[in-house]
Formats: sequence, C-alpha cells, structure tokens
Amino acid sequence: MAEKIRMGMVGGGKGAFIGAIHRLAANIAGDIDLVAGAFSRDAAASKEFGVNELGLDGARAYGSYQEMFDAENALPEDQRIQCVSIVTPNDTHAPVAIAALEAGFHVICDKPLAGTLDDALAIEAAVKKSGRLFGLTQTYTGYPLVMQVRAMVASGEIGSIRRVAVAYLQDWLSQAEDTASSKQSSWRTDPARSGESGAFADIGTHAFNLVEYMTGERITDVAAELRSVIADRAIDDDGQAMFRLSGGGSGLLSASQVCSGAINALKIEIYGDKASLHWQQEQPNELIVKTRGKPEQILRPGVNMPFLSERALANCRTPGGHPEGYIEAFANIYGAFAAAVKTYPDTDEEPGFAMIEDGIATMRFIRAAVNSSKNKSAWTPLSGIENR
Amino acid sequence: MAEKIRMGMVGGGKGAFIGAIHRLAANIAGDIDLVAGAFSRDAAASKEFGVNELGLDGARAYGSYQEMFDAENALPEDQRIQCVSIVTPNDTHAPVAIAALEAGFHVICDKPLAGTLDDALAIEAAVKKSGRLFGLTQTYTGYPLVMQVRAMVASGEIGSIRRVAVAYLQDWLSQAEDTASSKQSSWRTDPARSGESGAFADIGTHAFNLVEYMTGERITDVAAELRSVIADRAIDDDGQAMFRLSGGGSGLLSASQVCSGAINALKIEIYGDKASLHWQQEQPNELIVKTRGKPEQILRPGVNMPFLSERALANCRTPGGHPEGYIEAFANIYGAFAAAVKTYPDTDEEPGFAMIEDGIATMRFIRAAVNSSKNKSAWTPLSGIENR
Amino acid sequence: MAEKIRMGMVGGGKGAFIGAIHRLAANIAGDIDLVAGAFSRDAAASKEFGVNELGLDGARAYGSYQEMFDAENALPEDQRIQCVSIVTPNDTHAPVAIAALEAGFHVICDKPLAGTLDDALAIEAAVKKSGRLFGLTQTYTGYPLVMQVRAMVASGEIGSIRRVAVAYLQDWLSQAEDTASSKQSSWRTDPARSGESGAFADIGTHAFNLVEYMTGERITDVAAELRSVIADRAIDDDGQAMFRLSGGGSGLLSASQVCSGAINALKIEIYGDKASLHWQQEQPNELIVKTRGKPEQILRPGVNMPFLSERALANCRTPGGHPEGYIEAFANIYGAFAAAVKTYPDTDEEPGFAMIEDGIATMRFIRAAVNSSKNKSAWTPLSGIENR
Amino acid sequence: MAEKIRMGMVGGGKGAFIGAIHRLAANIAGDIDLVAGAFSRDAAASKEFGVNELGLDGARAYGSYQEMFDAENALPEDQRIQCVSIVTPNDTHAPVAIAALEAGFHVICDKPLAGTLDDALAIEAAVKKSGRLFGLTQTYTGYPLVMQVRAMVASGEIGSIRRVAVAYLQDWLSQAEDTASSKQSSWRTDPARSGESGAFADIGTHAFNLVEYMTGERITDVAAELRSVIADRAIDDDGQAMFRLSGGGSGLLSASQVCSGAINALKIEIYGDKASLHWQQEQPNELIVKTRGKPEQILRPGVNMPFLSERALANCRTPGGHPEGYIEAFANIYGAFAAAVKTYPDTDEEPGFAMIEDGIATMRFIRAAVNSSKNKSAWTPLSGIENR
Repeated sequence: MAEKIRMGMVGGGKGAFIGAIHRLAANIAGDIDLVAGAFSRDAAASKEFGVNELGLDGARAYGSYQEMFDAENALPEDQRIQCVSIVTPNDTHAPVAIAALEAGFHVICDKPLAGTLDDALAIEAAVKKSGRLFGLTQTYTGYPLVMQVRAMVASGEIGSIRRVAVAYLQDWLSQAEDTASSKQSSWRTDPARSGESGAFADIGTHAFNLVEYMTGERITDVAAELRSVIADRAIDDDGQAMFRLSGGGSGLLSASQVCSGAINALKIEIYGDKASLHWQQEQPNELIVKTRGKPEQILRPGVNMPFLSERALANCRTPGGHPEGYIEAFANIYGAFAAAVKTYPDTDEEPGFAMIEDGIATMRFIRAAVNSSKNKSAWTPLSGIENR
Repeated sequence: MAEKIRMGMVGGGKGAFIGAIHRLAANIAGDIDLVAGAFSRDAAASKEFGVNELGLDGARAYGSYQEMFDAENALPEDQRIQCVSIVTPNDTHAPVAIAALEAGFHVICDKPLAGTLDDALAIEAAVKKSGRLFGLTQTYTGYPLVMQVRAMVASGEIGSIRRVAVAYLQDWLSQAEDTASSKQSSWRTDPARSGESGAFADIGTHAFNLVEYMTGERITDVAAELRSVIADRAIDDDGQAMFRLSGGGSGLLSASQVCSGAINALKIEIYGDKASLHWQQEQPNELIVKTRGKPEQILRPGVNMPFLSERALANCRTPGGHPEGYIEAFANIYGAFAAAVKTYPDTDEEPGFAMIEDGIATMRFIRAAVNSSKNKSAWTPLSGIENR
Repeated sequence: MAEKIRMGMVGGGKGAFIGAIHRLAANIAGDIDLVAGAFSRDAAASKEFGVNELGLDGARAYGSYQEMFDAENALPEDQRIQCVSIVTPNDTHAPVAIAALEAGFHVICDKPLAGTLDDALAIEAAVKKSGRLFGLTQTYTGYPLVMQVRAMVASGEIGSIRRVAVAYLQDWLSQAEDTASSKQSSWRTDPARSGESGAFADIGTHAFNLVEYMTGERITDVAAELRSVIADRAIDDDGQAMFRLSGGGSGLLSASQVCSGAINALKIEIYGDKASLHWQQEQPNELIVKTRGKPEQILRPGVNMPFLSERALANCRTPGGHPEGYIEAFANIYGAFAAAVKTYPDTDEEPGFAMIEDGIATMRFIRAAVNSSKNKSAWTPLSGIENR
Repeated sequence: MAEKIRMGMVGGGKGAFIGAIHRLAANIAGDIDLVAGAFSRDAAASKEFGVNELGLDGARAYGSYQEMFDAENALPEDQRIQCVSIVTPNDTHAPVAIAALEAGFHVICDKPLAGTLDDALAIEAAVKKSGRLFGLTQTYTGYPLVMQVRAMVASGEIGSIRRVAVAYLQDWLSQAEDTASSKQSSWRTDPARSGESGAFADIGTHAFNLVEYMTGERITDVAAELRSVIADRAIDDDGQAMFRLSGGGSGLLSASQVCSGAINALKIEIYGDKASLHWQQEQPNELIVKTRGKPEQILRPGVNMPFLSERALANCRTPGGHPEGYIEAFANIYGAFAAAVKTYPDTDEEPGFAMIEDGIATMRFIRAAVNSSKNKSAWTPLSGIENR
C-alpha cells in the first residue's frame, strides 16, 4: 500500500449523504487510503463513527479538524495524512480549508468553493501562500465524455464557438412545502447560510463551470434575471442569463429548482463554425456530434474506444457497453487529485480537477449574476467584480 | 365536389419550393380545389405553368393578381374563387393581401405576415374593414402534438407556467459563402428585402409563435441580443433573448442560422408547477411529459389514441405507428382554413390556424427584439411597440 | 397535364381506409390522374362516390371493374386509363388483376399478392402473358432510408451479412373481443377469407419482404412456429421463425398481432462483417449505422443530404429536418410505378416497387412457414414449395 | 467494523480484469471486508499482490486455495473468513468451489457455473451436502430496473406472457484475427477450455438467465442453431433459438460474438396480454412500458422514485438523475450475498443473487441448445437433459 495516498476527512459523519459519496469515490479511485477524520463536531460521535463505521484506528478519529491537523503533523511524515477532504456545509469551507493549508496539507473540497466571495478570496490567498494543491469536486467534469468535449473543442474539431446553450434544471424545490422538508432544503433556501444566491449558486455554478471547462474559454459578461418563484423564499430558486464568451461566442444559461419534472437535468450544447456537440448529464455516456451535411455521430466511452481523447480513455474503467455513471465520475476527480498529490510539487498544467481559480471564477459569476439581476439585467462584466 | 372550396394562388410558379408545398398541403387537406392562379409576374409563364403543370382551365391562369381578382369577381358566385393563397416574397404580402381582401376574398398567407410592422398593420386594417378570414401558415402549429400541448396547458395539467425554453437553430447560413449561394439566402440576408431582421424574423418568429400558441399566453417583455456572426452580413444571423410571459413565467429564446449541425432544430420545453412538456420539430410525433416522482410519459399521435385532445385527434390521418410529418402538418393548416371558409361568417373562436393578431404579435416581437438589442439588451415591453 | 398518367381504381369506395390512402399517395406522387373507377359492387354507390366525392366525370364512374375495362378500351388511346389500382380485399385480387392485365392495363395492387399461392401463380401467369407492369404496394420499401439500407448493403459497406433480426409486432388483435370488433379484424381472422395464415400473411410478409429488399438476398429456408394465442381463433395471430439467407447468413423473424403495447412495431437489424444497420418503421427517419471501434452514426433523410444514395435522395421531398412519413413512403411507391408506366416498355431492372416475383416469394414464404409449423418447426426450403 | 463480513478470494491476481471488478463491487457493496486470498498459483506472486496491492496482512495472502481454507479454519471463528469469492477460469470453478464448501465456507462464484454440466452437478451436490450459501454473479440481475421488471411481471401488471425477444450480441470476435488476439479470446474459442459451447455458453446464458429471472418462469424447450461464422473456429461464435416458456409463451433468443457494431448489446422485450416491457443493458436506467392505447412510460431509477418496487429501490444509491451503471449492478449482487451471509442460516426465498439451481438451469440450456443444433434444430426439452 505504499502507493496509496493518506487522506483525512472533515465532516461526513453519520447520515451525511455527500460525505459517503466522497468516500465511495475515493475508494473506487483506488489509490487513496482514508486513515483519519474529524467527522462530527461531537468528539465522541466522530470517534464512534470513524472506528465503528469506517474501521479507522481509534487514535485517528478526531474530535475536531484542528486537533486532527495538529496530531497528524506530530506523526512521522510517512504516516501522517497528506491531504484533507472537506465535506462540511459551505459556510465552513473557508476556516477548515485555510487551517488545513496552513498546516501543510493538500485540500480537496466539495463545491461550491465558499459561501461568499470574500471567503473564497481568503482561501485563494491561503492556497497561494501555502503552495499546496487545492481541488474542487466539480463532479461533472469527471465524466469521460465531458473530457472528450474539452479535447474536441481544443483540437479545433468544432471550430470557433458561436453559441452555447446550457441549463441545469431540477424540481426538488418546486413546491412551497419543499422549503422546510429537509435539512438540505432549509439551508439551501436560507440566505444566512447559503449566501447571496440559492439555485444559481447551487447548480448554476455547475452549468457555468461546465461551459468554461468544455470550451476552454472564460465567460466574460452576463445579463441575468434571478427570482423566487415560490413567493416566500428569501433567495432565488430560478434564474436565467445571457452571457458572452472570451472567444466571441454567446450563450444562454438557466438554473432552476422549481421546474416540475426536471430531476437533475444538466444539458449543454456547443455550436462551432464546423460542428456542434451535445451532452446531457442524465445520459452521460452519449456525446452527440452534429456536422452540416453529414450523418450525426454518437460517441460512447469504453477502454477499447480508440476515437476517445487520451484523458477520456484514461478515465474509463470498463470496455464499451458496460455503462459507468455518476459515482465513477466523482471517483475520477479523486483519482486525478491523488495523482497530483503523488507527483507534488510537479504538477500537470491541467491536472484533471477544478482548481482554486475555477472556484473563484464561479464565485464571481454568482456575484455578477446577482448584481445584473438587481440592475434590470444589465450586462455585467465578470472582470469588474471586485477581488476584495 | 360541391363540398370543396375554390382557391386561387398568387406566386408559386416554376421552381418555387414553398408554392409547391402549399399546393401539396391544400391537396392533402382534401377539400380545396385550386382553380385559378397568378403564378408569375410574367403573364405567359403564369398561363403556361397553370395549364401545363397544374392542369387549370387556361382562362383562369392569370397574368397578375389584380387581373385574377377582377376576372373571378365577374364569374358567378358559385364558380368564382372563395379564397386566395399568397406565397410571394414577404415584401409583397401587403399589397396582394390588401387587394384580395378588398376584392372580397378570404386570404391564407405564407409567414411572416409582412416585411415591416407598418405593412402588417395595413393588412390588419384591411382584414378588419373587409371582415374576411385571414390565415397565416405557421406550419408547426399544424402538428397534432403541438395542438396537444396547447390543450394540456389549457386544461391545467401542467399547472401555472414557470419557465419556457425555446430554440430554433439552423446551419444553412453558417459559412460566409452561403450568403450568395442561392436566391433564398441572398434575399434573407438583404435588409432591403427582408426587413429589419434576418434570422429572428425568419425563424425566431416561429419560436415566438409556438410559445404563444402552446401556452395560450402572451410574451410581454423581451431583452435581446442580435448579431451578425458572419462579419459582412448586414442583418442578424444569430440572436438570443430572455422574455417574460403574461402569466408570470419567464423564458429563453434563441434563433440562429449559423449553428453548425443544426438542421431545422426547433425545440421547446414548458415547465409548469405540476409537470413539464417537451417537444421538438424534428421528432414531431413524440411529446414528452415529465412529472416529479412519476415515470416519464411519451405521447404519440394516431386516430386510435384516446388520450389525445379532440383537436389533436381530428388532425391525425393514420392509426398510431404510421408516422405523419411536416407536409401533413402543413395540410392541417389548410384544412382548418378551408373549414372556416365553409362556415363563414360563422367561425370558431379558435379556428386552427394563426390569425391576423398572431401575425401582428410576431411583427411586434421582431421590432421589440431589434430595439432591445440596439439598447444594450434592455428589457423592452411588446406593448410599447407603436401601432403605427 | 400531358405528363400525368391516367389511372382507374377498383375498390376503395365510401369508408374504405386503404383506398383513401392509395388515392392520397397517388395524389402526392403528383404525376397520376385518377380518371375512372369501379369503387363499389353497387353501381349506383360507385357512381355517387366517384362523382360526388372524387369529382370524376360521371361516365367514368363504373358499376363494375369489367365494365370499366371494356368502356375504357373503347376510348381513344390518349384518353383511356393506362393502369389500374386494385384496393379490394385479398381474395379478389386475382380475378381483378387478371382481367385488368388481359384487358391490356398495367396493374398496381395492394399487398399481399393474393389469398392463396394458386391465385398468386395465376396472376403471375397473366403478368407474363400480357407483358404489362405489375406493382405491389409493399409500403415500407417506399421510405428513403429503406432504400438507403439496400444501397449500403449492395455497395459492400457492411460486408457479408451474418445475422438479421426482424420483427413486426402489433396489438390490435390482442384481446379475444377484438376478433369481431371490426370488418377488418373479422376477415383477417377468418381462414376462409384470409387464406392459410393470419398474422404471418398480413404482416410477417412485410417483414419477409423487407429482409429480401434490404439485403438483396433470398430467404432460402425457414423453421417456424405459428399459433393462435387467443384460443378460439382459427388462424395464427402470433408466430416466430428462424431463417437462412442465400448469402450464408441467418436470422430471426417474428410477427404477432397480440403483443400488447406494440402499435406498428416493424424493426430490423442487419449485421455484416464490417458494420450493422438498424431501422424501425415507427421512427423511419433514422438509420443507425454501427461499426466496431467507431462512433455510431445516424443518417437522416433530406434533399440536401449528400451522403444518401441516389435513389434515397430522389425519394425525399423536403430539406433535412422536415420529417416525412408513412403517406409519403406510400406516395413514393406510386411515383415509381407512374414513372415505369411512362417509360414502358423500357423499364429499369430495379424500378422502385415490388414486382410479381416479390409477391410470389412472399406467398411461398407463407406456405413454407405454415408447413414448417405443422411439421414440428422442421427446416423447410422455400424452393421446395410447389409452383403449382 | 463488526458488521462487515470477512471474505477470501481465489484468483484475481495481477492483471486479472474480472477479479478487480469483483473487488470493486465488493468494496462498493460496503459490508464486505477482503481479508484473505490466494490470488495466484505462484505463492510468492500471490503474497506480493495481496500485501502490496491490496494491503492485506501478509499471513493471509496464501499460496493456494487449499492452504487458505486450512489456515483460515485454524483461526478463531470471529476472525476467519466467512465466504470465498471465486474468480478463476471456468474449468476450475468446480474443484475450488467444492473444496470451499467442504471447508465450511459460503461461496460466491463468477459465472458461468462450470465448464461442463458434470462439473456443475458436482458443485450442486456439494452445495446440498454442505448447506452453505452459493451465489453466482449473474451481473445483469443487479440492475435496479431488472429487478423492477421481475416485480412488475410478478405483480400481474403486464398480464400473462405471450412473447419474449432477447438478444445478446457482441463484435469482439467478429474477425478471424480476433481468435488469437488475447488470452480471453483464445480460451473462449477453445472447446478444451471453454466446454461444448462458445458464444452460447458465454453470453447466451446471460440472455437465458435474464428471461428466467424477469419472467419468473422456466424455459422448457428450445430449438436452436449454433454455428461458427469464422470458418476455422472449433466452437460456436453465433447462434439463434426459438424457445417455449413454462407459462405458455414463446420467444426468440440470439447470442453472437461476430455481429459488427454490437458492443455489449443485451436487449430484452417481454410482451404480456396487458402491457409490454423493454430494457437494454447499454441503457440500463430506462425501462420502457408500453400499453395499448396509452402513452408509453419510461421508468428511471433513484432513491426518491416512489413507483419502484421495494427491491429496486433498495438497490439504488443515488437520487434520480445521477446515473449508476454496471459496477454498481455488480456491487448489488455482492451486497445481497453479504446480507445473506449475515443472516445465515436464515435466508430469503429470493435472496437477490443467482443460486445453484439457476446455474444448473443455464448449464442444461447450453446442453439442450447444442443437442438441438446437432439434431437439425429439433425442439428439445430442457427437462430431458440428463442430470448425470
């Protein structure tokens, strides 16, 4: 097991859905060993969970993240954790991440980066100062065909980008009674805990990130309208925007959690001057390529599919026709992060996971969309969003 | 044949694609008899075409539309044409339509209503003065499942509408060399002949009309950005907009003729608070209904499909599983118009074809989108567009 | 109208569904003029229908087919009908067709060829003796993409054929009470009127014909099992078969009218040693091509789709993205027949419609399947089926 | 970790694909702890792999399965392994499984059960004698929607079954040069190592098992034709069959590894007298339900999908719209097996994995198909296949 990296986790105790998914993903990635954790604010609960549920050494199931960082740093270098996975609620990302970075650990953090742009910028400063790795789990970029889109756009196969359409629609907050129906729904709809935006911050950022990741361009300007469809919500649950891309293209983005019948409907279409690409998260194993005057093509993943880009291929586990899914995509993010930890401080320019600058960009997008919406949907440059 | 209505056509001579489609559609509709026409500005060519190609009585293949209107009015009432089909270029819709209406004939006219809002308003005045029927061939409303959407929305099945996404994308003008490659492409890209808008007027209006037809609501405000992707075009070939609906919902609309790989990609999604509806023109025989926590449903047409609305059912010709298409949809428009002619002056409130007010609305939409685009995409109410 | 061919119809009077479809198809084909007919065994009804419903000259709405053939032959050659469309029930195909051929007319006949193999062989003899054209409306071969399959197989693109899967499943006879629910269902389930087979004769023959048309090969042997799922039916309503192809491949065929949820589900897959082709009638505008280690391709029709074969292209009416359907496919059969009439006696080797030998082959297939089924599904060669 | 069951593995050392998938599946299942193994016939390689790759205690990485069974039985009961996972080539399943059962361990074994029917029957005897659990990893029954099909059929929702169509087609042996291109392909095509059948044994058995699992019926008779499409193969690479079901229905089955363009194309359709169900492995998250005269339905999995059966629901990990795939299906088999181990000797009548009788049934099916094929495809009852 010399080859596995040692990881500690903050959050993700009993009943935490996303923490379990992170562990499963790290597990499938295969070269990560979860050896420590502070799973709960309650020290006894944390230890109980770590030992009994996860089989950790009791000495390494800690009562707090600060305790974990101190204790681990007291261990010999070849035993102590190398990185920290943060799966706590958003408003605590900043203090945990900054402490981890200052203690010398690499960090992989659930998205979005933080509750506020200020917090995000504080994390960015800590990343720069520490020189450590910082990864964000933008899950959807872990799908092989999402990587394939990026590679095809970069190769020039679809030409210069003219138009993008992206939507991320859900329905789990579509009724008034949904607001208070679960822990997750109540904090998502509470501006005190989720920040200045609701649906746009939660899932609009996935749409934003996907556009930037796939196109390799930046969204430069946005004209947005956010609103609360359910009347008594204090935060947006639905929104739409026009945007402009750094390469001259333009596009439409919508994000909503009140669209009945939309389960997890993240869809994107990218039109270039040579061809267009069409992908949707709910059918992640189909990438449609349309070219004028030619038959439509459908690309599907698999370790034996020679037409895939090198990175897409490297992120398949099975031969064609054995579908992989969401959990495997998540695992691919963890696998890329583990690989970067192993080669640190040598790193790829494009390491296979979202980095701090991507996280900052999404926070600026949220702010710009909120500002535009307050200002009658005026076109708002992302570059104008203050850095502090 | 006492039951057929008698029709004259203006335009649609040798080589005219859309004129042939109109005749085919009228033919399939089955209760229309084309008995006269002024098919060309060249009198000899018109006669030659009418007699040799269409088998008309030579006396009724006229050299001009005015000649036709005069001569037909000189015939006994039970022989003369009852209606006129106008399939000339857009900028001539107004003079022909107004002359026809003044001569006492009902009119069915290719879309869009006119080249300019002024012309459109002049036609409207003539319709009102004459009291005659006026139909616009908004082809896509002739599909049974488009009618089904309207019926399902009206019945309350999907609840109040929250979000609409509509796009009409094509690629036939995607390259610079396409501008001058055909008659159609050259006039479509010439503002002198096609009016103040290109792609938005040509196909954005279909998207607009579909939203209003399906939802039974009006688009009240628009924030748009139109542009010419191909640099030397004097008119928009690509555009996008946010819009608001009279019922409180909002939506996104895009129309482009430079999106590579998009053939005739008209797609629409309507999200209500109870369910959502999804339809696309290239697969017109599938209407997808999505409801939270329930299996997705796909409705397909057919004379033996009891779940269809009365109107949708009446517009099917074949049992389920024998697909009908674009030409049949077009025929349904003609069939509805013929039925209205037969019962005139008794008319249904909702006769099954787009009427003058729908045409005026699309012209206002074009003007509002163009104005918004010139004004930094400011929100622009359609009600503010001058009526003269 | 000099270019149109003159046609007479036998059958297809008031309320006859298939007769109306034939007329619509001939109409859309565009170069056929229905000028005469014997629409009903009741002379008055025939005249009434021909004159009032179809607008025929009263003198040419005849009381019987024999009367029509005699009277038309008494007209000048440039006025008399050139061909006869037979849309009567199957058991009368033979007498009508033979009389028409003997009277010197070309014949286009609804499928299947006849009620019995003996009748079929009598028609064949009359065709050979008269030297006239004989076409069968095997509707599905009128779809452009079905033609495309034939062209692709012939070109060697998919290599030698190894395996074929074809199924034609319906559900309109799935319940016991369906047997007597309509005219059509009652004669279809009566061996006295429909011959030795029910579902296999009615739709299994479409599946059989499609295999032979697409592959360009002959089915040489069949091992079949036919049965009546609804207990009191005197004829098969469900059946299955294994078969062998002349080129060495093998395949499976099923035909059933008791499969709940199957509307008009005709599907076929053809696997070669280089690629495979997949088509289904309910989505006739998609031809899927699958090749090992390459992206899947979807071919769609349209007059502007350069990858289509010459014949497929010639059978499209609209540009890509404007779907055509079943009625247009039917019209393509009529168009091909009309073209052959015009150039007669010069004919294409492959004229675009099923000919007498195709009809005979389907009748032999029915007989072989029935024989095999009676003989414990023993492999039965079609060549062994007696020619008389 | 008191709740996890302790497992040993036989086979699956360095470079073994299926062994890695089994470990991943057990890992995801979550309540299985791999604590011992004999991963290779080479004792040093086994130890090296177990310790360095899997992080096992060196004392429990054994040099042979017999050594493992002895040593583990010498450990205290609360430490020793409870079950054995067998992932060796087929011809060794019998000796390993029998030894494991005799040593008192439960067994979970890769499919197919054995190389020959005799071996299979020997395993069956050992299972009965030992009273231990025996599970076969028939992977596809691990998909939630496959469980849903079984539940819907059992509930009577689709009525009595009339017709089934199942096909499992691949193309990885489609060329002559594929025969010797890999370890797997060379043993699969060698009758000395793979038994009396090739493609039918390898994947035809999956198709067979799926029919029996979904319908809850037994296949009683088969009429088959197996052949070697690639001329110099000593074993079938392609085959087809008609079959009869215990409930009176009938069906078609094909299995081929030479069908170009088919990757892992396992598809099944089940037609009852009330409705039909349609599922395919390459899109495992869609179950299509078709009912006469009603809209088609598509069921998709997810922990929040109330229309799913209890078992289907229990085998989802994520909310709707987060696709799971092949590895998760595999994990579900392991999860069910682990649950049965925990409650042993109390077991569910239907424990969620294929049992010894299912394995025996597939072996009889192979023999019956081979016999039928040698006997001119004569109908062959499975009950007539000798038990020894």
